[in-house]
Amino acid sequence: MVIVGKKPKMRYVTACITLFNKGEKEILLRARGRSINNCIDVAFLLKKSFYSDLKIKNIAIGYDEAELEGNRRRYVSFIEILVSR
Amino acid sequence: MVIVGKKPKMRYVTACITLFNKGEKEILLRARGRSINNCIDVAFLLKKSFYSDLKIKNIAIGYDEAELEGNRRRYVSFIEILVSR
Repeated sequence: MVIVGKKPKMRYVTACITLFNKGEKEILLRARGRSINNCIDVAFLLKKSFYSDLKIKNIAIGYDEAELEGNRRRYVSFIEILVSR
Repeated sequence: MVIVGKKPKMRYVTACITLFNKGEKEILLRARGRSINNCIDVAFLLKKSFYSDLKIKNIAIGYDEAELEGNRRRYVSFIEILVSR
C-alpha cells in the first residue's frame, strides 16, 4: 500500500515503481481529504508515463471518522485505487 | 448531473435533493482536480444525512486534457460518482 499525501506526486510515483520492481503485482493507493486528487493523478501518471499496461482494478470511496477533543467528530472522505500490472 | 466545485458542500447536496424531489432516480456527481474530495463528501453527506437508502452505483476516475496557450497541455483528473435511490 502507498499512502498518498501532499508531497509532490513524483514521490509517490517513485514509491510505486520501487514496489513494482520488487515484484509486486498490485498496489493499493490510498488518500484522504485534500490528497484525493493527488492520488488519482498518481494512478494516471503511472499509467501514462511508466506502465502503459497498468490496470485500474478497483476504486473504492468511503469516509473515516476522526474523534476530536471535546467529543466532536469529524468525517474525512478517502479513496482507494487498486492498480495492477 | 451535478458538477461539484469549490462552493460549500451543502449547495451541491441541496441541488441533489431538488433533483431527487423532481423524480430523478439517479444523479451523476462530477468533479475535477481539487474539488474531487468535495464530491466524495457530497455523496456521503447525502447518504448519511438525507437518504439512508442511497446507493453508490458506480465510481469512475479519469483525466481531462486542457490545452493551454503555447501548445502546452495540462491534465486534470476527475471523478464521477453515480448515486441512485
